[in-house]
Amino acid sequence: MSNMKRVLFKHRSIRKFRSTPIPEEMLRDILEGATRASTCGNMQLYSLVVTRDEKLREELSPCHFNQPMVRQAPCVVTVCADVHRFSMWCRQREAEPAYDNFAWFLNASTDALLAAQNLALAAEENGLGICFLGTTIYTAREIARILNLPGGVIPLTTVVMGYPDEEPGLTDRLPLNAVVHYEKYEDYTAAEIDELWAERESSEETRRLLEENDLPNLARIFTERRYVRKDNLAISESYFELLKEQGFFNN
Amino acid sequence: MSNMKRVLFKHRSIRKFRSTPIPEEMLRDILEGATRASTCGNMQLYSLVVTRDEKLREELSPCHFNQPMVRQAPCVVTVCADVHRFSMWCRQREAEPAYDNFAWFLNASTDALLAAQNLALAAEENGLGICFLGTTIYTAREIARILNLPGGVIPLTTVVMGYPDEEPGLTDRLPLNAVVHYEKYEDYTAAEIDELWAERESSEETRRLLEENDLPNLARIFTERRYVRKDNLAISESYFELLKEQGFFNN
Repeated sequence: MSNMKRVLFKHRSIRKFRSTPIPEEMLRDILEGATRASTCGNMQLYSLVVTRDEKLREELSPCHFNQPMVRQAPCVVTVCADVHRFSMWCRQREAEPAYDNFAWFLNASTDALLAAQNLALAAEENGLGICFLGTTIYTAREIARILNLPGGVIPLTTVVMGYPDEEPGLTDRLPLNAVVHYEKYEDYTAAEIDELWAERESSEETRRLLEENDLPNLARIFTERRYVRKDNLAISESYFELLKEQGFFNN
Repeated sequence: MSNMKRVLFKHRSIRKFRSTPIPEEMLRDILEGATRASTCGNMQLYSLVVTRDEKLREELSPCHFNQPMVRQAPCVVTVCADVHRFSMWCRQREAEPAYDNFAWFLNASTDALLAAQNLALAAEENGLGICFLGTTIYTAREIARILNLPGGVIPLTTVVMGYPDEEPGLTDRLPLNAVVHYEKYEDYTAAEIDELWAERESSEETRRLLEENDLPNLARIFTERRYVRKDNLAISESYFELLKEQGFFNN
């Protein structure tokens, strides 16, 4: 198996890190790797905020619900959509930038997330472990405040990275035909949905979760414990407000 | 240099393809590679619509402004945010899904784009070339119609892939310190912006573009030719409308 394939296929999220710092040159290489991803019109509409300072990671920690990895991992990278830098350049050239709208939130997010995945793989290729923190969108406003993000910049996700202090197994995935459609989107029948989730639903892990949560099935753990409507609506509203405040919705 | 590093650092977009089909097993491997990317709560909130049929690629072609690669490349992958499949599963388990809002557009987009970058790298690792098509968000409604996307599914980007029929050089990038900030976001001074763009602005390529476009600087090519306000606002509006129609904004 090629080393690339090994990196892709061996990915698992790491949640326990050693405190060993990432060598300067390795970090630089990983960040360079991130910038090689495709980018809209070669505009590079993103910024990577690399936080290593312990006090500052402590300050960020509550934004990520105090998950210990934010304090443990030597490097926390906040991945941001960024039309600010490009717009500033335009204004300095007496060109009127027009990137303060939803289309450019989408373009900038795409740039940022493709770069983020390159970052993650480059880190793993160097023997580091990573974890994406979905909490970033829950508390984007507070993260923006701590990191001094100007208008035109908004956090999308966070990658913690460092030397792993655990060796978790691979996470299962749905069968490939769950996510792949050939030619057009072929909607699922009820029987297909049952089949796609069958293995996961009958796993030991699921049995344990149901017992712990005192719920009759795995889906209800998602809807009643993990990602519940009230929170989802609050996050939607606060992020959309921030999007407007940061100047991504002058439509 | 490791093979992974070679893939990351040698990436360039390919816009001319041979018609040679992608071997079935290779395609499967590439798609599997895509699914190994990190995903929110292991929910895999995306779908990859793999269009190989020539007539259907022809139908998609105008959605991508008739760029010849959509007809040429043997494989066109439309990358979609998808909360439909997961919600269907929830409903079949009498769990009330709550993923029809903006937060879950963000989560699903993140899942989809991380998977898309894995897809691109896995393709390149196999000797294929790829290009991301930003036109996808311009014409998302028409793409959704052609591909029969149900509610809860929306196109984000498209990856064309196949055997390259050209060997373009690497595209330049801004210096690394343009996109990386240490500790917090450090806003740019006017002098820094000048410095970051200096090399690109003085290149032969830029000189050629200015002559072709009869404009005094590169920034104005972006704001007056490539990505102009009127189009940006129209795209913003139409995509946001579609977002609501597809059920991603019941906030």
